[in-house]
Amino acid sequence: MKTVVLKFGGTSVGSIDRIKKVCKIIAFYKKKKNRIVVVSSAMSGVTNELVNKSKLISNNFDRAEYDAIVSTGEQVSCALIAGRLKHIGFKSRSWTSWQLPILTDGPHSSARISFVGIKELSKYIKSGGIPIITGFQGISNDFRITTIGRSGSDATAIMLAKFIKADECIIYTDVDGVYTTDPKQYNKAKKIKKIFYDEMLEMASLGSKVMQPTSVQDAKLNKIDIKVQSSFVSKSGTLITGTKKTFSNQIITGISSTKNDAKITIIGVKDRPGVAASIFRPLSKNLINVDMVVQNISQNGKETDLTFTIKSEDLKKTEKLIKKNKSISYKKLSFDKDLSKVSIIGVGMITTPGITYRMFQALASKKINILVISTSEIKISVLISSKSVKKAIAVLHKEFKLD
Amino acid sequence: MKTVVLKFGGTSVGSIDRIKKVCKIIAFYKKKKNRIVVVSSAMSGVTNELVNKSKLISNNFDRAEYDAIVSTGEQVSCALIAGRLKHIGFKSRSWTSWQLPILTDGPHSSARISFVGIKELSKYIKSGGIPIITGFQGISNDFRITTIGRSGSDATAIMLAKFIKADECIIYTDVDGVYTTDPKQYNKAKKIKKIFYDEMLEMASLGSKVMQPTSVQDAKLNKIDIKVQSSFVSKSGTLITGTKKTFSNQIITGISSTKNDAKITIIGVKDRPGVAASIFRPLSKNLINVDMVVQNISQNGKETDLTFTIKSEDLKKTEKLIKKNKSISYKKLSFDKDLSKVSIIGVGMITTPGITYRMFQALASKKINILVISTSEIKISVLISSKSVKKAIAVLHKEFKLD
Repeated sequence: MKTVVLKFGGTSVGSIDRIKKVCKIIAFYKKKKNRIVVVSSAMSGVTNELVNKSKLISNNFDRAEYDAIVSTGEQVSCALIAGRLKHIGFKSRSWTSWQLPILTDGPHSSARISFVGIKELSKYIKSGGIPIITGFQGISNDFRITTIGRSGSDATAIMLAKFIKADECIIYTDVDGVYTTDPKQYNKAKKIKKIFYDEMLEMASLGSKVMQPTSVQDAKLNKIDIKVQSSFVSKSGTLITGTKKTFSNQIITGISSTKNDAKITIIGVKDRPGVAASIFRPLSKNLINVDMVVQNISQNGKETDLTFTIKSEDLKKTEKLIKKNKSISYKKLSFDKDLSKVSIIGVGMITTPGITYRMFQALASKKINILVISTSEIKISVLISSKSVKKAIAVLHKEFKLD
Repeated sequence: MKTVVLKFGGTSVGSIDRIKKVCKIIAFYKKKKNRIVVVSSAMSGVTNELVNKSKLISNNFDRAEYDAIVSTGEQVSCALIAGRLKHIGFKSRSWTSWQLPILTDGPHSSARISFVGIKELSKYIKSGGIPIITGFQGISNDFRITTIGRSGSDATAIMLAKFIKADECIIYTDVDGVYTTDPKQYNKAKKIKKIFYDEMLEMASLGSKVMQPTSVQDAKLNKIDIKVQSSFVSKSGTLITGTKKTFSNQIITGISSTKNDAKITIIGVKDRPGVAASIFRPLSKNLINVDMVVQNISQNGKETDLTFTIKSEDLKKTEKLIKKNKSISYKKLSFDKDLSKVSIIGVGMITTPGITYRMFQALASKKINILVISTSEIKISVLISSKSVKKAIAVLHKEFKLD
């Protein structure tokens, strides 16, 4: 008998009809003689509505009260699911995070789950019951409600899978899996059947909205295989795993791209130890996210050119901060907007030489100019003009046999 | 330094603007150097919306899940109030019933509060904080959320006042007090400044929508004075108390009336011990509420006439149930619809003779026919044609000097 954790996202339970559909999916797994634990998000739209109310009350709404408010969304959706399952003849009940309990560390609105109490839960699933557990939340040491970030129900599912020692964790969402690249950008994009945690981490942080990186990281740390699947269409989804066997010898698993990047180059910076820190400290303080950073080796040992990318909307603020930064001296500033980062990702590149060359060659064949390059062990990213993104994805998709 | 419990009903916190207004009322009491405990209902409309969702899921929705759903309304309104109070410079936080805790006995959706934990709460109010507590709910012995009936926030306020030993309990609502009779029925209706618990109990059960009878009963048992006041207009409200002094020597405190009553008379019932029980058992089983009951003394010791009133909508069902009741035999059934019960209420009638006569005389002077009479120590009710209700209220209001 397998223990399966099923997680449903906001759009999956977005209406009464959707909740009825979700209960049919749960019933399907239950009838296969599995032990089932369900985690649900709030019905889509509900959380935003609650957030708006808090904003109308105060432009600096207290975080603890915020958590008390938004956590109610899951309490409602879970009770509706349990009520529906009872209606169609199953034993089911909802569980809030204080009832289990799900304990968290860290600040309100961005806490992390540290412990899941499973004593009562285990007894309940052994007796054939289907527990429905509120995602995205827990309680703090002083018994107040915390939330774990907007997409935190995935994390709840994975931590539950860990503590209950589940055999499977299936994330039902509004996409039917992870694709080789964004299907909106390139119509030959293919669904990935299996992907490694690390690859998924690179995909996630680069814009694939399927799963939050922290949840993938949790799954990796706890060696929990995740299946991402659509609750709207019954197609097989994507397995996110660390298990090596049964993988094809594909070198590149996927291609991701960003939008609205901007590039700043500081030319002729007086080079001295700590100069990079001096440049980035005020940006960090102002919550400006710096992505790619490239520093040329100083030619004469006295001056250097530093290039980095940020989001376009932060460009003006960044320019101001650099100009009023008294702790650095430089010759010139140059800016570039309407840029995009295109990345190829795959654990296969660790053991396969020549991938970088093949990427650059493919882009060159389409006369796509590369502005910045940055590499990790399983990822190569290039900064190019946003105009060329579609073309770049197409040529790379073909080059690495993803079509 | 006084400890004051302030309770706000659904319409009082019915919008973001209303919540801001309510926070000004709370601030007013706080600035007077009181210790404040606030109890709030859900924003009006919210509970109904949640109930509708549960109905769409199942026409027989599980009561425990129902409680989990509807209890979220108060969690949101309380956190919004606490957030607003913090915004305007006060120390405040929300408290749910599991955090305090508020323990309850009895079934889901109609539980009763048995205990309120005040240890943390007392410390908090002594430190100058304003706790905002979810009304209408508690937790059961097995740590599940319970609710205490649709208007149960009043009960929460009264039990909190009891456990925290409050000096005052002020119920803010959308009416500005208890009136001598329904102002919609009679424009000379006057606000009652002070009313006894028992009088209020008779008023409440007869249709005055100001407070639930169980809450008045709780206040009476725990000797807690209640002030009912409007959060919309700043006028003095009504004090509900058990204290004798400072009362005027008014004999009648108020006049209430019902709508849509129906009367059934069973003529020539074979009289034997237990016959009344035989008649009412099937009605009770079918949740038909019997109000007034009058049985004539059997003339020959063998037969009797039994008259009782029910709501008009139950008339057909009641007729059917009596006709198929094999355990009774009778000569004839007679029915009457479109009737109303008009009652005069006042503890003063205990010590003042002749009230019954004055009531009947006043009604006779307007040619109003009395169909059934029923009396208690502090109330006299008569059943009359609904057409005559306005006339009856007017003549009685004048007769007992309430104008």
